[in-house]
Amino acid sequence: MRDFSGALRQMSLNTATVRRQSDLLGIIEACARHGIPAISPWRDQVAAVGLGNAGRAIRQAGLKLSGYCRGGMFPASGEHLAAAHDDNRRAVDEAAALGAPCLILVAGGLPQFSRPGSHASKDLGGARTMIEDGIGRLLEHARTAGLPLAIEPLHPMYAADRAAVNTLAQALDIAAKLDPGQTGALGVAVDVYHVWWDPDLQAGIERAGREGRLLAHHVCDWLVPTKDLLNDRGMMGDGVIDLPGIRAAVEAAGYDGLCEVEIFSNHWWSEPIDAVLTTCIERFQTVV
Amino acid sequence: MRDFSGALRQMSLNTATVRRQSDLLGIIEACARHGIPAISPWRDQVAAVGLGNAGRAIRQAGLKLSGYCRGGMFPASGEHLAAAHDDNRRAVDEAAALGAPCLILVAGGLPQFSRPGSHASKDLGGARTMIEDGIGRLLEHARTAGLPLAIEPLHPMYAADRAAVNTLAQALDIAAKLDPGQTGALGVAVDVYHVWWDPDLQAGIERAGREGRLLAHHVCDWLVPTKDLLNDRGMMGDGVIDLPGIRAAVEAAGYDGLCEVEIFSNHWWSEPIDAVLTTCIERFQTVV
Repeated sequence: MRDFSGALRQMSLNTATVRRQSDLLGIIEACARHGIPAISPWRDQVAAVGLGNAGRAIRQAGLKLSGYCRGGMFPASGEHLAAAHDDNRRAVDEAAALGAPCLILVAGGLPQFSRPGSHASKDLGGARTMIEDGIGRLLEHARTAGLPLAIEPLHPMYAADRAAVNTLAQALDIAAKLDPGQTGALGVAVDVYHVWWDPDLQAGIERAGREGRLLAHHVCDWLVPTKDLLNDRGMMGDGVIDLPGIRAAVEAAGYDGLCEVEIFSNHWWSEPIDAVLTTCIERFQTVV
Repeated sequence: MRDFSGALRQMSLNTATVRRQSDLLGIIEACARHGIPAISPWRDQVAAVGLGNAGRAIRQAGLKLSGYCRGGMFPASGEHLAAAHDDNRRAVDEAAALGAPCLILVAGGLPQFSRPGSHASKDLGGARTMIEDGIGRLLEHARTAGLPLAIEPLHPMYAADRAAVNTLAQALDIAAKLDPGQTGALGVAVDVYHVWWDPDLQAGIERAGREGRLLAHHVCDWLVPTKDLLNDRGMMGDGVIDLPGIRAAVEAAGYDGLCEVEIFSNHWWSEPIDAVLTTCIERFQTVV
């Protein structure tokens, strides 16, 4: 396992971690100030400052990217289906323009939540079919753009409204079906928050490595109690996830890329940006 | 699939559904008043009125039982381990005394949450080993008492603090290991709230039927948004779970027992008991 205790070479900051404290340009400045060498920005944060400005600021600060957040939300009906596809093509193009190594895909849940205005349904299996179809269609464009897609399985508590891809095995099955040649165009993102509970996690990580799918590794922590389904993720070390155990498995499976800190937290959003980054760095070096 | 639209022959009420409105004797009276033919009581509710009184009231009201809640919380350390085992033996004995068809097992998560005072750990795999050991040990006593044990996989959002058995496949694997002869002494409870998201649900239900493990079927609904991880379950029909689809699968796999309504909900706990039961019955007859 790589030594994270010294220089911050492997750390990336998902910019949603401090989204309420600053715009993207301010976050880029803060990362440079703290010696964080990489980020993974969100589309809305990029749009708010302009794609050109975002790219320039990232290059001038000398930051690398660990991903781009996010494409997906595939289930949809009627005119929302074509809009979703167009939206996802633009996400690929933006990621390519910024030089991101992959576009993170949050698959979407039932169509009425994935693309509001779509026909309401309780057919989770149907939503999963739409997800496969959507990824398959987007993959053609992503191959042309030379931009890998990373399917991120989300915790099962998000199955209805955020992503009906809920285990690593399920994400890998989709990738195997749509990219049987293991071309590198389609992989997975392993976020500890979503997969830590899975009794098949070790087997899934090993399979992801064997099949060449490991495109991203995200860390935060699971708090007990968790007070909010969406915005109560923990700082690394404050919860119950065996972070070194999962990182060891991911690295043993061949992953040697950036390790991305991604925390959605009402608590951490209320702290000053420098305090948050200082804590992220200290925990990254000691408990990840 | 059985027709639930008419007489209430297949309905059971998990008594936690109205635990804040009344003690167990009052709940039994209310069920009799509403024509609900069965209940599944909780240990603390039974203890509060006395085991003998509870049994007498159930018999006098002519109620059947669909289960007894609950044994489990196996992970523990030090003296808490022996205490857990003794506690679970008593749960088996109480269930047998009441004539319950099974004891529901909520496996427990990490030891510090499962049995407070136990050594703190992030070793989820270790907790799972303790769960297997604990069920194996309890099974001997349960066989002697003639009381089947029903492992209830809980939603992955409870993996840390309530149950590290989180999928039907995992519960069935445990049952296969500890009861390879499929004797009927060890099975599973299929609660829609916990398993509805699982891409392998259909396969798991079919396997549970083939292996003779289907001991209980619980219904409620998953709300969007869910405001509380524990106490925001929905009334059947108010959420996104395909209840008839899951019931059809469970019954096609051979389950012909009671269908138990179990709703932990701050909202429904604040409503009058008769209003809650009237709603449960109406939904049971129309959307389950």
